[in-house]
Amino acid sequence: MSSVIDLLKSHKSIRKFTGQKIEPELFDILIDAGQAAATSSFLQGSTIVRITDPRKRREIAEFAGNQPYVETAAEFMIFCADLKRAGNYCEAYEKPFEGDFTEHFIIATVDVALMAQSLVTAAESVGLGICYIGGIRNNPGPVSELLELPKGVYPVFGLCLGYPDQDPEIKPRLPRSVILKQEVYNEEGDPEAIAEYDDLISEYYRTRTGGGHGITWSEQVSTLLSEKSRPHMKKFLVEKGFKFR
Amino acid sequence: MSSVIDLLKSHKSIRKFTGQKIEPELFDILIDAGQAAATSSFLQGSTIVRITDPRKRREIAEFAGNQPYVETAAEFMIFCADLKRAGNYCEAYEKPFEGDFTEHFIIATVDVALMAQSLVTAAESVGLGICYIGGIRNNPGPVSELLELPKGVYPVFGLCLGYPDQDPEIKPRLPRSVILKQEVYNEEGDPEAIAEYDDLISEYYRTRTGGGHGITWSEQVSTLLSEKSRPHMKKFLVEKGFKFR
Repeated sequence: MSSVIDLLKSHKSIRKFTGQKIEPELFDILIDAGQAAATSSFLQGSTIVRITDPRKRREIAEFAGNQPYVETAAEFMIFCADLKRAGNYCEAYEKPFEGDFTEHFIIATVDVALMAQSLVTAAESVGLGICYIGGIRNNPGPVSELLELPKGVYPVFGLCLGYPDQDPEIKPRLPRSVILKQEVYNEEGDPEAIAEYDDLISEYYRTRTGGGHGITWSEQVSTLLSEKSRPHMKKFLVEKGFKFR
Repeated sequence: MSSVIDLLKSHKSIRKFTGQKIEPELFDILIDAGQAAATSSFLQGSTIVRITDPRKRREIAEFAGNQPYVETAAEFMIFCADLKRAGNYCEAYEKPFEGDFTEHFIIATVDVALMAQSLVTAAESVGLGICYIGGIRNNPGPVSELLELPKGVYPVFGLCLGYPDQDPEIKPRLPRSVILKQEVYNEEGDPEAIAEYDDLISEYYRTRTGGGHGITWSEQVSTLLSEKSRPHMKKFLVEKGFKFR
């Protein structure tokens, strides 16, 4: 098996970093590796805003729900879905702008995630650790203002990068049989497989957090789906020009 | 520099495959590598439906706008955003189901893309080629019917996997300065950098397609944003339970 596969399988989020900086040349190479990922219709609908200003970092850490590693990571970036860059050229080519359909939103959001994940793999391959920060969507308006994001651009997630100062356990994933289906979607056997997995995750949380909560996977994720999760997102996005037509 | 970074930077979409199969053990390992990617709030909101039935492959190839490699690739999968699996447990834990917010849609869609991109990197690391098939969103309803996708699950994209029978050139990406911004979003210098890049891409298309169209990047992507792109997506998604609240 390839060492790349070993690398991918050893992923874990890092939330504690040493003070070591990332060399500018290396940083640029990581960006290039990210950019090489596939992009739908060649749109290249991602823009990365790199944040170095400590005051801005602190503000964003707070906006994201007090995630201190946003401040302490060697690098912190916000990955934005960007339909403005391409949309700018509609006028030049004398075409109407119609780039506010749900489909455009999907294309740009997927583009961002593909690029980020390739950048993450590149980073992990040179010994860096990463943590995605979805929490910036707690306050997408203030984050966008801080970054001066124009219409047609929205912040999808943040990313912390740095040299790890911790070595957490790998968090087990759902059994393959649950997430991989043959020919048709089919939940046969899933309840039993998930029940076993629930025990595993409960044990993981209990031992990892030192007498911790021991919550199961199913209980944890059902909470996410029973909540009006970030209910401001729709309004925010519509104002930013993503109209979900 | 790491060989992983070289691998990532050498990505190109493959649309012609040899007849060589992928060993089942290897296939499973690729899935595991994909699953190890980060997942928002530990949702694990992705389900892969693997399609082997040649008749189904042919139908999907047509639904996707006649993309023959959907039929000829060693493996073809459809990556689905899945809020049903977690949502199933709301009732068990006596919670209301509220998982139809725009935020839930973003979480699941990003989850799918992160998993797919790690799977893609794993595949490329063992000499396989890949092609994402966004074209399945041309006909998301018929594709969903064929795969028997329930409410709460939508097909984000397909993925062809196989041993390459072609070696296309790497397609140059936008200059780094255009997609990477410092502290704030800022278009200074972008028009000039994009104009140069347009020349490069025009030349790429001209030489690669043998007296081909020679279109520029800006013209190509402005077309995407001047079109009512897949205008059926919103209605389809709402019917599937993604209500964009």
